[in-house]
Amino acid sequence: MSTRAWAETGDDGGFGLANLPYGIFTRSGGPPRAGVRIGDRVLDLAGLAAAGLVEDRGWFAAGSLNAFMAAGRAAWAANRARLTELLGGEAHRADVEPHLVPLGAVELARPFEVADYVDFYSSEHHAANVGRMFRPQGEPLLPNWKRLPVGYHGRAGTVYPSGTPVVRPCGQRRVPGQDEPGFGPSLRLDIEAEVGFVAGVPSAPGRPVAVDAFRDHVFGFVLVNDWSARDVQQWEAQPLGPFLSKSFATSVSPWVVPVAALEAARVAPPAQDPAPLPYLRTAEPWGLDLRLEVLINGGRVAEPPFREMYWTSPQQLAHATVNGAPLRTGDLFASGTVSGPGRGQRGCLLELTWNGAEPVTLADGSARAFLEDGDTVTIRGTAPGPDGAVIGLGEVTGTVLPATC
Amino acid sequence: MSTRAWAETGDDGGFGLANLPYGIFTRSGGPPRAGVRIGDRVLDLAGLAAAGLVEDRGWFAAGSLNAFMAAGRAAWAANRARLTELLGGEAHRADVEPHLVPLGAVELARPFEVADYVDFYSSEHHAANVGRMFRPQGEPLLPNWKRLPVGYHGRAGTVYPSGTPVVRPCGQRRVPGQDEPGFGPSLRLDIEAEVGFVAGVPSAPGRPVAVDAFRDHVFGFVLVNDWSARDVQQWEAQPLGPFLSKSFATSVSPWVVPVAALEAARVAPPAQDPAPLPYLRTAEPWGLDLRLEVLINGGRVAEPPFREMYWTSPQQLAHATVNGAPLRTGDLFASGTVSGPGRGQRGCLLELTWNGAEPVTLADGSARAFLEDGDTVTIRGTAPGPDGAVIGLGEVTGTVLPATC
Repeated sequence: MSTRAWAETGDDGGFGLANLPYGIFTRSGGPPRAGVRIGDRVLDLAGLAAAGLVEDRGWFAAGSLNAFMAAGRAAWAANRARLTELLGGEAHRADVEPHLVPLGAVELARPFEVADYVDFYSSEHHAANVGRMFRPQGEPLLPNWKRLPVGYHGRAGTVYPSGTPVVRPCGQRRVPGQDEPGFGPSLRLDIEAEVGFVAGVPSAPGRPVAVDAFRDHVFGFVLVNDWSARDVQQWEAQPLGPFLSKSFATSVSPWVVPVAALEAARVAPPAQDPAPLPYLRTAEPWGLDLRLEVLINGGRVAEPPFREMYWTSPQQLAHATVNGAPLRTGDLFASGTVSGPGRGQRGCLLELTWNGAEPVTLADGSARAFLEDGDTVTIRGTAPGPDGAVIGLGEVTGTVLPATC
Repeated sequence: MSTRAWAETGDDGGFGLANLPYGIFTRSGGPPRAGVRIGDRVLDLAGLAAAGLVEDRGWFAAGSLNAFMAAGRAAWAANRARLTELLGGEAHRADVEPHLVPLGAVELARPFEVADYVDFYSSEHHAANVGRMFRPQGEPLLPNWKRLPVGYHGRAGTVYPSGTPVVRPCGQRRVPGQDEPGFGPSLRLDIEAEVGFVAGVPSAPGRPVAVDAFRDHVFGFVLVNDWSARDVQQWEAQPLGPFLSKSFATSVSPWVVPVAALEAARVAPPAQDPAPLPYLRTAEPWGLDLRLEVLINGGRVAEPPFREMYWTSPQQLAHATVNGAPLRTGDLFASGTVSGPGRGQRGCLLELTWNGAEPVTLADGSARAFLEDGDTVTIRGTAPGPDGAVIGLGEVTGTVLPATC
């Protein structure tokens, strides 16, 4: 088995044989179908299947990956092995090459239908920074924070594919210096650089997913931008949590990186003290050395390190189901803002600018406390792969459009 | 047009011609289909359609009402008028009677697929009681409470049909007298008697649903039991709101009562002071005189009055979309616990027993601070209809099964 695809030309950009992420694409207005990215091309899985080159049980000529995600770990592994065979050796080149489409010739869609969407709050650095800003007299972390991965449900219906413009939301928000809440466009529009995982295989009601059963249920990882209206959030979020400050838009990257592609990126997570309860203890290390970049208008403003996350993905999944809530195919779990200990490692403007008090300077010399209309935010990510390979997570991007109120 | 159906026999139980609620049923293991309840029978809409008696554009021979809910207000009105004609006059009796099925011969399913689920907190009496219990030194209501309908997203995947047993959830919770959180079955399992409305017609992203456009989007109302693990909730819910304390189960009643059936139940809601912002001002009164009953093991423990809700359903919908979040068919919005000013009008045990300090006595003489295994909770509701008719909301019921941890 080759570790280099014939389909790759020069630098694979993180999309070599060790990655093989799945997405949904359309071409020239045709029907949506599943594809795998290899280098700067997309391998048309529906086309491969029609030619008899891969197995397809209604998985690939579809508008979402959900059917394939539900097929389970054995089906995922078999397809991955087959694609590695087809792309890795010259033997199949003539058969496969007609099914490769240049990335520039396709439109990428949201890769899966979201069932429920949960957002965690699992970076200690992020949670502590937020605590210092908003509860300056108290402990940075609340008492529950190191006992369980704090999380909440978000709006599944507003999880949008990368590239979808984000209209600045309107709503009630506190304007500094005014006692009464005002209504209008958010004045503190922010991003949150996150990593999400998506469930493929459902679980039964009443049967928690064990922390070591993560690979049996989870299909893969995406990048997430949890757009946030901080002024709306500060006004609305007590006592039941964020609502309209988050529900206007959440963006996800187009390529779902399989769990199998991230095995080489597993590292020891930060030490957990106090020791978590048994249902949150993993046999293997599940920190993930994903390296994010946040860019505003093309210039980098932060490099959040996912390996610094206090709570790991399997811990999040075990916690979310420990009460018997079942998983459905398409359940999306986002990590919460990824922030490291360094100032340049913070994954949102709230932290980077310390709630607007210390604006960041962009490449063009302009300053930002929060986002302005027209700003484009892009989050990129990579991970180490096997044998020195790089695993690309691709990017999630969106441009802010003016409010319409 | 008759105001009394030939299909009714004696007391219609709240299910006469003025109601005509929709549900999904199966019979003898056959495929699910849509029906309308009339008296103690179900009118098989798929059967009627096959006989050419009602229009059906793929609406009624389905496992959910979603397609019909999406068809819109004109389609809903046309079908309602046609059913009134078919059931109200003897002319059609011979044609229609074969499509009536005794209620006892059918199984009722969850009437719609839930897209997103939002739960509000719109009873002032409930919110103030909770505030008094958990923030005894502060104001009962937080500053935002009378400015906007506080709400949050819940788990759509665990909205279950009435009758589904509820397994006592396990999780981290604080046990009184212990500093460390424990893991185990919830010791404070509770209910919340609520009323929900379900969206039929989607809205476009970025286009808020105006407060007076409620009837253009909302298909109808159901009863909701928002099962709650209070000990889990107290430990987990800061700062991002309830998560596992709610996500294990939410039950909905089988019959969706059309908005049109509740026009006669509209009343002036409680006065709102301060005056709400313009996007929350309705031209018509949208309080609803729905009268709920909460029964534990068949004995009534509370009679919550929905007309006492501070925030109305159209206000909730306008608020939830004011940031541009679109509606999808099947979006469910629950009211939050319905509690009135009287002690016997409180819609949850947390309030009825003042967090367990003052247990209620059941019909069998036993006392309850919170629910015990084997307890059956039933919420019923009625509303005044036109010309002295009663509109039945039916009931939502569930029995507590022992925890499995």
